[in-house]
Amino acid sequence: MKTYAKHDFPVSEVRRFLEPGPIVLVSSAWKDEINVMTMGWHMVMGFVPSLIGCYVWSANHSFAMIRNSGQCVFNVPTVDIAPTVVDIGNCSGSDVDKFATFGLTAVAGDKVKAPLIAECYASFECTLVEGSLIDAYNLFVFKVVKAHVARSPKYPRTIHYRGDGVFMISGENTARFRKRFTPGML
Amino acid sequence: MKTYAKHDFPVSEVRRFLEPGPIVLVSSAWKDEINVMTMGWHMVMGFVPSLIGCYVWSANHSFAMIRNSGQCVFNVPTVDIAPTVVDIGNCSGSDVDKFATFGLTAVAGDKVKAPLIAECYASFECTLVEGSLIDAYNLFVFKVVKAHVARSPKYPRTIHYRGDGVFMISGENTARFRKRFTPGML
Repeated sequence: MKTYAKHDFPVSEVRRFLEPGPIVLVSSAWKDEINVMTMGWHMVMGFVPSLIGCYVWSANHSFAMIRNSGQCVFNVPTVDIAPTVVDIGNCSGSDVDKFATFGLTAVAGDKVKAPLIAECYASFECTLVEGSLIDAYNLFVFKVVKAHVARSPKYPRTIHYRGDGVFMISGENTARFRKRFTPGML
Repeated sequence: MKTYAKHDFPVSEVRRFLEPGPIVLVSSAWKDEINVMTMGWHMVMGFVPSLIGCYVWSANHSFAMIRNSGQCVFNVPTVDIAPTVVDIGNCSGSDVDKFATFGLTAVAGDKVKAPLIAECYASFECTLVEGSLIDAYNLFVFKVVKAHVARSPKYPRTIHYRGDGVFMISGENTARFRKRFTPGML
């Protein structure tokens, strides 16, 4: 699989890649183990600090790894590895070493122990800042502490899950509305 | 503007329209006033009950209306009304009557006082179920209590915000991965 050379990116601008709603691969590390899960339930919650909210099902092998470590990495895959993204979501880290099984390259992060995924377009290192609703709602709030993004293409072709096995692939971009925005509201 | 005839839809399946990450119009009602805001920061948080998490900036006029009423409606607009969606996000309900200004048709909901928007493809009536992180994070968790969805098209052309005035329009769908899913994981 292709790997992306990624560069430092402002953490306050990760919304450019998360707000459109792509499926992400969330990687984690705990003790001697690393793991990755497929996730569609996440949202941006702030620019400064750069916050992400997400739902991690307590039955997932990643749940305890993320909760215990208080860390994870949000990786943004592109449509070319969609089959792998699906397969990652359809097995458990309790049964298989997903990085080895799916040929993913784990790259050391700068701020967290969870690995970046070289085959993904962007990787956002995160630390847990709010966990009071984990027990009741499986709701985690993370702060993005370091962002790595490929320079090309400017807009990755991401995959967006509709349920029932159907994915939407990100379509055309339009900036023709930019002039309608109030300054400061972009 | 075109209006959509909407029909009852299972609340447990609203993820089909929200998980891909579209911009939504959130309508609210409080006392004699109705209002609507543009929102990109939301996520699915469960099927049964059907839960949605979202961020509502406390500076928004809708914030107090939603918090005080404990209700809102998530409406899914399509690309044909994108200019209106942008304009709704670039003014405040404290200054203008947005329904009147933008020619939106308020339709009475079944379960909540906040109005459905006839010009939107889908409308999800919601009640607040968890507000303990509103003060610290502007984070609301809603339960979808009634869903209304148009029958055609099967997949609406939605708009997804990238920041900086750029929208992604939902692209092609693919079901070619369905056979890769484990039963029960769709």
